[in-house]
Amino acid sequence: MSEIDRMLAANEQWAARFPGSKPVRPARKVAVVACMDSRMPLFGLLGLDVGDAHVIRNAGGVITEDVIRSLTVSQHLLGTREILLVHHTECGLQATDDRTFADRVEKATGRRPFWSVQAFTDVDDDVRTSIKQIQDCPYLISHKVRGTVYDVETGRLREVV
Amino acid sequence: MSEIDRMLAANEQWAARFPGSKPVRPARKVAVVACMDSRMPLFGLLGLDVGDAHVIRNAGGVITEDVIRSLTVSQHLLGTREILLVHHTECGLQATDDRTFADRVEKATGRRPFWSVQAFTDVDDDVRTSIKQIQDCPYLISHKVRGTVYDVETGRLREVV
Repeated sequence: MSEIDRMLAANEQWAARFPGSKPVRPARKVAVVACMDSRMPLFGLLGLDVGDAHVIRNAGGVITEDVIRSLTVSQHLLGTREILLVHHTECGLQATDDRTFADRVEKATGRRPFWSVQAFTDVDDDVRTSIKQIQDCPYLISHKVRGTVYDVETGRLREVV
Repeated sequence: MSEIDRMLAANEQWAARFPGSKPVRPARKVAVVACMDSRMPLFGLLGLDVGDAHVIRNAGGVITEDVIRSLTVSQHLLGTREILLVHHTECGLQATDDRTFADRVEKATGRRPFWSVQAFTDVDDDVRTSIKQIQDCPYLISHKVRGTVYDVETGRLREVV
């Protein structure tokens, strides 16, 4: 059985004990922006219930145009008014840079990315940069944002101030 | 207490029963691409454990340049080899279009988005379009991709073929 078949089988168990539907608008009016890292089950580590908050994730949890699009939809169409950023320790994007990454992709596929991999060195600086980008974003209704770093060794979030 | 303070407090409980660290490379070598919708706790509904799979999410679960960046990082730096798409019923992006959305954002903020909101009408068609975009992506090592629609009324995933 493939890994995806296993996931579809696990979903049958989820559906069997499904508690019922919730409204489309997030109950707690929060949008979370986080890294895609496999060690962060955000509902669990933030104590979220089904229907509580939007969850936007990409490599690094960085603020790209696509994240701005998602946050704008979240606030204007679906009523969220606070943003929580969740970056983390030991991120894969701290171990590369644009040139090294592009060389690697080109060697394996024959195609060189024209886009930046969005690498960073200091995670706290990266969170502060992301906070600033949210605060400066002209499309949002609310610029209330807080940033955190998740420690993958302890499961603990630390707020960056 | 603000909603974000409540989430940070909930994290203390998570950290108190934290089972220990996992490797950065996803154990099941899968990257999930899904909508940000608040009703989809992906670890729960796919039976994922901490460390199993990358989770990439945006408004709609659509394949943008940022998702391609994230999937390229996922495969080249962190070893994933399969992609699972999770769209869902009753998506907020089915109730708008670029002009309606831009009018709304401009009225509320004074700024008109230059980017598309990525609205769609038929969710199965949207999944098929996303599958095709993954298959055509020149930066990936593996183009193994399957697409599903999550029913927010029942908790059940249906594969789109």
